[in-house]
Amino acid sequence: MNKNSLIIGRQPLIEALKSDKQIDKILLQKNSSGEIINDIRLLAKNKHIPIQFVPIEKLNSLTKTNHQGVVAFTALVNYLSVQEVIDFVVAKGEVPLFVLLDGITDIRNIGAIARTALCCGAQAIIIPDKGVGALNEDAMKSSAGALEKINICRVGSLMKTVDELHLNGIKVYASEMTASKKVFDINYVEPCAIIMGGEEKGVYPALMKICDEKFSIPMQGDFESLNVSVATGMILYEVMKQRS
Amino acid sequence: MNKNSLIIGRQPLIEALKSDKQIDKILLQKNSSGEIINDIRLLAKNKHIPIQFVPIEKLNSLTKTNHQGVVAFTALVNYLSVQEVIDFVVAKGEVPLFVLLDGITDIRNIGAIARTALCCGAQAIIIPDKGVGALNEDAMKSSAGALEKINICRVGSLMKTVDELHLNGIKVYASEMTASKKVFDINYVEPCAIIMGGEEKGVYPALMKICDEKFSIPMQGDFESLNVSVATGMILYEVMKQRS
Repeated sequence: MNKNSLIIGRQPLIEALKSDKQIDKILLQKNSSGEIINDIRLLAKNKHIPIQFVPIEKLNSLTKTNHQGVVAFTALVNYLSVQEVIDFVVAKGEVPLFVLLDGITDIRNIGAIARTALCCGAQAIIIPDKGVGALNEDAMKSSAGALEKINICRVGSLMKTVDELHLNGIKVYASEMTASKKVFDINYVEPCAIIMGGEEKGVYPALMKICDEKFSIPMQGDFESLNVSVATGMILYEVMKQRS
Repeated sequence: MNKNSLIIGRQPLIEALKSDKQIDKILLQKNSSGEIINDIRLLAKNKHIPIQFVPIEKLNSLTKTNHQGVVAFTALVNYLSVQEVIDFVVAKGEVPLFVLLDGITDIRNIGAIARTALCCGAQAIIIPDKGVGALNEDAMKSSAGALEKINICRVGSLMKTVDELHLNGIKVYASEMTASKKVFDINYVEPCAIIMGGEEKGVYPALMKICDEKFSIPMQGDFESLNVSVATGMILYEVMKQRS
């Protein structure tokens, strides 16, 4: 398994940001400012790369080199744009099936979801650049290699992504425990994307509103607490069954 | 969350073994022998309680009390016999649905399976006394409380358990990646039990042979590696759908 490697110092990071190099996360020293720092922030924002402000001790613990208050981690996965993936999938003659993750922080769950998505014929996982667990070595390990095979899109806003999916004729469905429609009442044969929310908070309400349908997984008994990767498995199993 | 508490010393353990007290595991000092040790081994065997032989340092690290080479952990779950659960389920007018775990060592998976089983209306998880992860605090945590609500049976032999299920008119199905029947080709409306094997080795071949049917989960693409708790979710979703 590859490890995230480091990009150390201001100029190396600026160059990496201007190149095709994939970056997972940028750490900047707290209260750092100046023109180059502004450039870094702007370039990072355009590429949806999360920035974290940390004490100098954190940066010192990562490297003994002169870091100038700037350290970044290269990405273990190859991030693509949503439009790139749609174009690629349609060109291959496949029917789009994407999974959007909203507020899922447990990296083991993200890994298991990637595995399931790949097994069930989904072509991409779409994650926001904030509030989702990092795709680090542990995530890679729980995915049993799936995170290296499936397309991953990192986006600045899931709201805008839903608009983009709609413009491409892709329906968007979300899982919500109280929805009256059941998971098997939805037609998944047409191009679609599924939003999975975190186990505690569920899907963000404004995001839920712009979905085409919401559905629940019927439960037996009074215990209603599925692990999010298991719930994703049940939904994608239903999709796969309808599509086969 | 409760912690496993300790039973320390020969006589306290003998008394616990003769009472209704539930014991998770017994640690005996390596090379210990004698009449009381033989009694402990016999009583433990009858109750399907695993015994582990460990160096004296291990026992010393657990307690400062004079342990006489004997330390046991009380159980966090209330183990029942398979027949007790069958009688209980049938008396309630429910259709038995059990999940048997063969060689599943990851306790997070066991926890997630218990959650899923409870959500899908399964009444019991059946585990062998060897080769399965311990139902400790971590398992409790991943199960989100489900392991305290679902019936757990610990058995000396899954082979004998399948015979026992058969004698009670319960069909036994197993998941196998190469099976030609698909998961949705099986009828789950009648009383049944599902055997899930570990991700690497699958279900033990002799056990597979005495099952009524084996089935596979259809996969899209060339990546065929579902997490075992996700696979269990897909299967139990199919059962739940057929039964609702």
